[in-house]
Amino acid sequence: MRKILAGAVGALLVALPGQAETVSDFTLDNGMQVVVIEDHRAPVVVHMVWYRVGSADEPAGHSGIAHFLEHLLFKGTDDMAPGEFSEVVEAQGGNDNAFTSWDYTAYHQRVAADRLGLMMQMEADRMRDLVLSEADVLTERNVILEERSQRTDSSPGALLGEQMQAAQYMNGRYGVPIIGWRHEMEVLSRQDALDFYAANYAPNNAILVVAGDVTPAEVLKLAETHYGPVAPSSDIVSRDRPAEPPQLAERRITLADARVSEPYMRRSYLAPERNPGDQRQAAALTYLAELLGGSGTTSVFARALQFDSNVAVYSAAFYDGTSVDPGTFGVLVMPQPGVTLADAEAAMDGVLAGFLEEGIDDADFARLKTQIAAAEIYARDDTEGLARQYGEALAVGLTLQDIADWPGILQSVTEDEVMAAAQQVLNRRNAVTGWLTTEEAQQ
Amino acid sequence: MRKILAGAVGALLVALPGQAETVSDFTLDNGMQVVVIEDHRAPVVVHMVWYRVGSADEPAGHSGIAHFLEHLLFKGTDDMAPGEFSEVVEAQGGNDNAFTSWDYTAYHQRVAADRLGLMMQMEADRMRDLVLSEADVLTERNVILEERSQRTDSSPGALLGEQMQAAQYMNGRYGVPIIGWRHEMEVLSRQDALDFYAANYAPNNAILVVAGDVTPAEVLKLAETHYGPVAPSSDIVSRDRPAEPPQLAERRITLADARVSEPYMRRSYLAPERNPGDQRQAAALTYLAELLGGSGTTSVFARALQFDSNVAVYSAAFYDGTSVDPGTFGVLVMPQPGVTLADAEAAMDGVLAGFLEEGIDDADFARLKTQIAAAEIYARDDTEGLARQYGEALAVGLTLQDIADWPGILQSVTEDEVMAAAQQVLNRRNAVTGWLTTEEAQQ
Repeated sequence: MRKILAGAVGALLVALPGQAETVSDFTLDNGMQVVVIEDHRAPVVVHMVWYRVGSADEPAGHSGIAHFLEHLLFKGTDDMAPGEFSEVVEAQGGNDNAFTSWDYTAYHQRVAADRLGLMMQMEADRMRDLVLSEADVLTERNVILEERSQRTDSSPGALLGEQMQAAQYMNGRYGVPIIGWRHEMEVLSRQDALDFYAANYAPNNAILVVAGDVTPAEVLKLAETHYGPVAPSSDIVSRDRPAEPPQLAERRITLADARVSEPYMRRSYLAPERNPGDQRQAAALTYLAELLGGSGTTSVFARALQFDSNVAVYSAAFYDGTSVDPGTFGVLVMPQPGVTLADAEAAMDGVLAGFLEEGIDDADFARLKTQIAAAEIYARDDTEGLARQYGEALAVGLTLQDIADWPGILQSVTEDEVMAAAQQVLNRRNAVTGWLTTEEAQQ
Repeated sequence: MRKILAGAVGALLVALPGQAETVSDFTLDNGMQVVVIEDHRAPVVVHMVWYRVGSADEPAGHSGIAHFLEHLLFKGTDDMAPGEFSEVVEAQGGNDNAFTSWDYTAYHQRVAADRLGLMMQMEADRMRDLVLSEADVLTERNVILEERSQRTDSSPGALLGEQMQAAQYMNGRYGVPIIGWRHEMEVLSRQDALDFYAANYAPNNAILVVAGDVTPAEVLKLAETHYGPVAPSSDIVSRDRPAEPPQLAERRITLADARVSEPYMRRSYLAPERNPGDQRQAAALTYLAELLGGSGTTSVFARALQFDSNVAVYSAAFYDGTSVDPGTFGVLVMPQPGVTLADAEAAMDGVLAGFLEEGIDDADFARLKTQIAAAEIYARDDTEGLARQYGEALAVGLTLQDIADWPGILQSVTEDEVMAAAQQVLNRRNAVTGWLTTEEAQQ
């Protein structure tokens, strides 16, 4: 469907062919993109602001600042006391949170639809008027350090993942963890946070996604009232990030840690991402991950490694193509007790070799296509999930048209395309293989 | 000896206790450090300018710009035509060259002593008045790309070194090759070069080293005449580079290339560098490299792997502690035909384990100490080499006192210090192990 809202100053509203949901899009004069997803089934609204900045945009040596700043945005502004933001949301019966990734930082609330203006007022306020005391910064720095302790440093698997990711990227910034390296987090300062905030938080670096019981006209009016007055920044730089050189040799890492209870082997291959107007290979890799190690019990890995043989207790493959720069295609095998990691890896490589030789089972592929179509339809029923999908895709540089095209591309992918993507990506020269074990590496 | 030159405006001349050679040091008003090493045995002089900037200071995504700019400094200035610099040096019977490393870029000429003023005039000219045409830049870019083709891309060993170095540094910039990644070199622009030049080439980021048949007074006068008028830059930033996070697991890389004629295994361990007032560990590692795999045939590796057994045709260990950030301690074993890399590595690890258990042979250590003392004495007889030693050490942040102290520290290192350094550094969690082979990796 197509919508035009007459008289919207500086605004363009469109809905695109192929879109199942009712989506409208406009842009404020200050450059802020606004996307509205209508869903009138319940009188609630999800309000999200996505900044096109994440940990991969951090200055070298200041890892963790994007995520740290996300925490600090819950401190005060010139108009609000520290902590007041979430208290107001809660007092209105809503909930709010935020998250940071390599490519974006997002803030979101879920509230009754008639509170949307209040959310915008508060979110616009903290877009430019953040106030940070030294004490707030020091307190919150301990919070993120504790977060790192709990999520990463106390988890051998998370540590292996971090070491593998650092080895995967020889030049690019995805090799640096989103939470940050501890030694750099420990010295993140109030000034670091304010500099990163000033450089990146502005309406022309943000996407507003509103989903729920609202009309585009209402949202546009509220957005112009609350976000419209926020001045754009002239300092927003394009995200020209360092690209990878040719990766000529697999890197292998064995992390030995006495805390490991279930050893496993993982491998990540450098893999292409979704790009504007060019999503077919990413769609093919989405199928490849599902075919090889999807959550269904009929995956190639599960059949060969868990049922036909007793090699593994668990196996998986994963791929997420929604990123600015090339991401990874991952595989994992957790061997049965008594099976070595070397044997588990050899078995998995044998399965991969067989798959590359024999190709895809037609019935598997047809079944998976139906499952993926169904998953896409179910996803459209989840308004908050849809808002996330739109925000994430737009934040990494995809267009509304790309988002609208994605389900159709997924349905049109062929077995040949999946096999071609597999042949290209499953190349160990581009890979990092990791073993998680209790024992020191035996070479 | 100690020298004071009265009346030198803005200048301080000192020579330090422990220094064998006659060295004077002063600083121009614009911040340029000047070091004079007197050697009156021949009527020649070495003139070097060292900039405290190298490839590890490059902006991410622009690798190779430091080295590219070094090439471009042989293009013209407002006063000199492209190529004229070297032509003038040659016409005076001299020679000149330049080099770039991670931490510095240096330009040097060797000429008759009475041509020193001319060298300074020309070097000061290109410190701030470089003129680059688009055509010069494009031509020279092909030169550096060809240099990369010849030195790196056509050499599997160099490629392995590059991949290993990238894996060694999880966060720091030494993982990026000095020559640059090809895909980034290909788009280096005139503006990139001019930006890097403007940001880094200034007297307050430079060290002048003059060695040969000159007096400090003459050098000071000439330096004030030629370099004195060059304005300092207010944009020089301190070299706070990203530090490594804990390295928790060895990385292993097998590079298979049909062009390999002699397979070998290498390993690099992250290793501490010389630091101001703190050079004992680096001195101990200097001994460790010589003991394990020095060029003498009596090294621990050579005895065990080449003579007592027939494992290797060649073995070596290397360490160079003169850097801003931690460097690497390297070992290499090239097996005899018929010996696998796995067996060669296992043999080397056995030798290392034995060494760590049994310690150093006293006679070996005494012999090595004498050799190192002799080498230091011989080095002092090579004026150009001395000039390089001073320039390099100062460029990475060491002081004249550190340079003066170094030979004494080398002589006072104990076997216990060497073993303690070995215990700390020979830790495979901090290591990258590389195999160079003709065959695809067999896991």
